[in-house]
Amino acid sequence: MKEIMAVVRMNKTNATKKALIEAGVAGFTAIKVLGRGKPVEDEAVIQERKNKLLEMAVHESIDAEEAERQVVSFLDGSRLFPRRLFTILAHDDDVPRIIEAITKANKTENNVGDGTIFVMPIADAVRVRTGEAGEAAIW
Amino acid sequence: MKEIMAVVRMNKTNATKKALIEAGVAGFTAIKVLGRGKPVEDEAVIQERKNKLLEMAVHESIDAEEAERQVVSFLDGSRLFPRRLFTILAHDDDVPRIIEAITKANKTENNVGDGTIFVMPIADAVRVRTGEAGEAAIW
Amino acid sequence: MKEIMAVVRMNKTNATKKALIEAGVAGFTAIKVLGRGKPVEDEAVIQERKNKLLEMAVHESIDAEEAERQVVSFLDGSRLFPRRLFTILAHDDDVPRIIEAITKANKTENNVGDGTIFVMPIADAVRVRTGEAGEAAIW
Repeated sequence: MKEIMAVVRMNKTNATKKALIEAGVAGFTAIKVLGRGKPVEDEAVIQERKNKLLEMAVHESIDAEEAERQVVSFLDGSRLFPRRLFTILAHDDDVPRIIEAITKANKTENNVGDGTIFVMPIADAVRVRTGEAGEAAIW
Repeated sequence: MKEIMAVVRMNKTNATKKALIEAGVAGFTAIKVLGRGKPVEDEAVIQERKNKLLEMAVHESIDAEEAERQVVSFLDGSRLFPRRLFTILAHDDDVPRIIEAITKANKTENNVGDGTIFVMPIADAVRVRTGEAGEAAIW
Repeated sequence: MKEIMAVVRMNKTNATKKALIEAGVAGFTAIKVLGRGKPVEDEAVIQERKNKLLEMAVHESIDAEEAERQVVSFLDGSRLFPRRLFTILAHDDDVPRIIEAITKANKTENNVGDGTIFVMPIADAVRVRTGEAGEAAIW
């Protein structure tokens, strides 16, 4: 019995939800969090992000000061981004299949920020309605 | 030392909180999440839910299209419901008593959606103010 | 591999975030929760809180009824306070350093409510973008 936590992009909420249901998972919850992953070290990625922010400033969708602020916080890793946190109940045997489904739904073309999945042990579970405990509580 | 997570109905927030305090739990947190449990398979329950939604449509508290949408998402399990997620710190010995208290506060008359409780191991805990670690951190 | 959860005061959000980044942690998420720690038993602390609430009532920043309600809920432990919950991914070796950083950022002068840190085992982790698993997923 495991708890799988997945931190994914906000715009991958529906794709992830659909993937979880198709993978036949037991119950799950979803919540909005602010999060940060590994700071970017790849110069090409940093340059691309800088260019994008500067272009946004030029086209006035954000002002120059905000663009600069975002570049700085992007570089020092202090910026938090909105993310969707899924918490999923799973039988041990289903964990690899669920991880694969989440990965497939969230993998973009090598973009930083695709998210992280972690798996935690569960000592016991109880379904309130029936009183079922252990594996039976998570069908 | 365990972390108990309980996903319960929103309208059971106060009853659960009261039950936890009476059970003498150490700290806990509460947060609103969107969640889904086991999809309903019992035909009688499905029919009852359909009837209720159709009746709501007739009485115009929701329109017919919304009733239909809710029936469909209810049946395919894709609908998420607002739920309250409690995260509770507990000594090992107190876990059965706390599970019983949560169950008692949340059990309705065999209705789907009463919630799930799961119990996770904690490796260590620290109370910031005093620096107390391990079991001492959770009184 | 561990998940560190820290429940801290709302106004310590930035200090905690800064401490985590300086401590070189891997990814983390932050979220607002309602929480409650150990009820206060120290008479001096209780008297001080009562006086503060009564003074607020006198100066009309809250009315007398609200002051009374807050004193009661403070004493019976039923009042929940807004708190920031951090969830941090960490290598085993980094856990003591991260706990120290969080403690340093959040310790006030022996005031109740400085928060709690708990450490939970992680069975596995996966970085979606690269497919890296285990320790590699959390750099």
